[in-house]
Amino acid sequence: MTLPSHGSNPHYLYEAMNLTQPETVIDFSANLNPLGPPPALKQKWQEAYELITTYPDPHASSLTTKLASKEGVQESELLIGNGGAELITLVGRFLAGQRICIVQPAFSEYEMACRSAGCEIEYHTLKEGEWPLVPARLIDKMPHLDAIFLCTPNNPTGVSYDPAAIRTLLKESENHSCFLIIDEAFADFLSDASYAPEIATYPKLIILRSLTKMYAIPGLRLGYMIANPTVISAIKALQPHWSVNALALLAGEVCLEQIRHVIASRKLIAQERNKLHAFLIEKNYSYSNSSVNFYLMKDPNLTDQTPLLRYLMSEGIVPRHTENFPGLNGRWLRFAIRTPDENRRLMEVLAWR
Amino acid sequence: MTLPSHGSNPHYLYEAMNLTQPETVIDFSANLNPLGPPPALKQKWQEAYELITTYPDPHASSLTTKLASKEGVQESELLIGNGGAELITLVGRFLAGQRICIVQPAFSEYEMACRSAGCEIEYHTLKEGEWPLVPARLIDKMPHLDAIFLCTPNNPTGVSYDPAAIRTLLKESENHSCFLIIDEAFADFLSDASYAPEIATYPKLIILRSLTKMYAIPGLRLGYMIANPTVISAIKALQPHWSVNALALLAGEVCLEQIRHVIASRKLIAQERNKLHAFLIEKNYSYSNSSVNFYLMKDPNLTDQTPLLRYLMSEGIVPRHTENFPGLNGRWLRFAIRTPDENRRLMEVLAWR
Repeated sequence: MTLPSHGSNPHYLYEAMNLTQPETVIDFSANLNPLGPPPALKQKWQEAYELITTYPDPHASSLTTKLASKEGVQESELLIGNGGAELITLVGRFLAGQRICIVQPAFSEYEMACRSAGCEIEYHTLKEGEWPLVPARLIDKMPHLDAIFLCTPNNPTGVSYDPAAIRTLLKESENHSCFLIIDEAFADFLSDASYAPEIATYPKLIILRSLTKMYAIPGLRLGYMIANPTVISAIKALQPHWSVNALALLAGEVCLEQIRHVIASRKLIAQERNKLHAFLIEKNYSYSNSSVNFYLMKDPNLTDQTPLLRYLMSEGIVPRHTENFPGLNGRWLRFAIRTPDENRRLMEVLAWR
Repeated sequence: MTLPSHGSNPHYLYEAMNLTQPETVIDFSANLNPLGPPPALKQKWQEAYELITTYPDPHASSLTTKLASKEGVQESELLIGNGGAELITLVGRFLAGQRICIVQPAFSEYEMACRSAGCEIEYHTLKEGEWPLVPARLIDKMPHLDAIFLCTPNNPTGVSYDPAAIRTLLKESENHSCFLIIDEAFADFLSDASYAPEIATYPKLIILRSLTKMYAIPGLRLGYMIANPTVISAIKALQPHWSVNALALLAGEVCLEQIRHVIASRKLIAQERNKLHAFLIEKNYSYSNSSVNFYLMKDPNLTDQTPLLRYLMSEGIVPRHTENFPGLNGRWLRFAIRTPDENRRLMEVLAWR
């Protein structure tokens, strides 16, 4: 059985598992803001139509200026991409043929991108009890590495690494001339904090950020990268012309102003997370100590969670399988935190079991 | 003076040429359908909003099925991309480090993509009198080449190569195991004919097509590639996940049904082309014998067309410079065929000169 390599588009999972898709499903497999896009975007939608008729600005000048100002970096330190996935692919090409290490479990695109660019890949796999622990042993591996991929807050566990320990890693990565790629795709769900200001101090740091999770616009594709200007310009040279579409550029500008939407989202998600975790404790499920908008969960009585996955899917609840996350290998399921009604439905279906 | 590498976004050209941009400009520098997108797309726009909130189908299944059926090819022979520029970049990566030849003058992205993938690049540059001639001498070069890029109808000249001669090239490219990449980005403006059906016979043929020109949706980014399934699957492995946004996928499905819009566009463009060319003959300008929606034009009394370019821009008319087209090097200007009113304005401004 080959399961889809990512969440979302649930019909592919039903197909792969040979299950009939119920008429209504709730998709818990994509880690998106349950409040959806900021309403201001919908208000701009009709006039945004005109944007499709002209080429997007290939330099994304206006959004670059705004993002650089928000992040407190120079415009030359920032590159906008066609979603996080494109930026990861570009980093892979930038590191072509080099020796890279991925702190696992993590988003599977790092490996895909580096593999297709002919990199030598190794894992630093955190054990189940060690997810919140800082991977300090990584430092020992640095002498023979060219780059390390790290995701914090981590996808798929939802757990954040300790900032002090990350700073140690940053210093050591400079000493060993090893790139440290920190994927902050879900950082917005935790706080306004970012490692972006460290760019000026650490030329080997590359930050990846996404606008599609917090602002729930994955259909548009939008992400950005922050790094040393030399790195940015080398990576920009690998990017196709007009890679970021005109609507994504507009959406980025609108979304950046939606501070209240971000605060309301964080609040709702924290409330729902607490509610869900209390329920999971009560029902004897295990879960990861997530600080963001998704979490891992399992029935500790099952080694392989496939029976639970099949049960939930037959009830129209679609989690993300973890078969292709090294270090998890199907022993957990990942759930996005959805709206109160949707989370209630999940708890209801779990309670029936 | 470094001019922008492409048309559209005219403010970059005004900046580079140190000219003040008039309040109103007419952009003749982007080769788009003057009728704009089919009205059916605007009718779908409000409901299309919901598409931004979920991930696009990473396999673009529905549009792939429709395009394959339209082109008379297998789905495994087709790959949808984030605009023609992404597909060209992917072909470049596919040919990484190999020896390629570009029939010039041609779209500058072929060279950019191949260069950033470490290819050895040579030109087969057609002389001014030879634009419509088939580059038969290319066959002599095939033994030491891995791939040839050819654009027909050609951008920037608008001239099409003779199909019989292209078929000779196809046969020889198989004999010499040399890829022949035919970019048909503007073929829709000529007729429904395509080299796509030849894919079954010639495994070394790669066809590139665009939906952004005929349907005037460059802001959305959408193109596709037709090739042997082995080539398609190797190139797909290099493409970032979710590369084609959800609105582009929807627009593709809507546009494919707009047969009357295509016919009306061809008719209008042919009428306007004849009108413009009659005017240019009368006023002693030279022009290329284009069969599509743009043409080259020059004042034969000027070696370098910069004075004409500056004059037109100061009057709010923005052509495409040809400084970065090998074989043209600024000796011509390229103009899109726009609406009757806009073309009339161009003739008026030229007549004042």
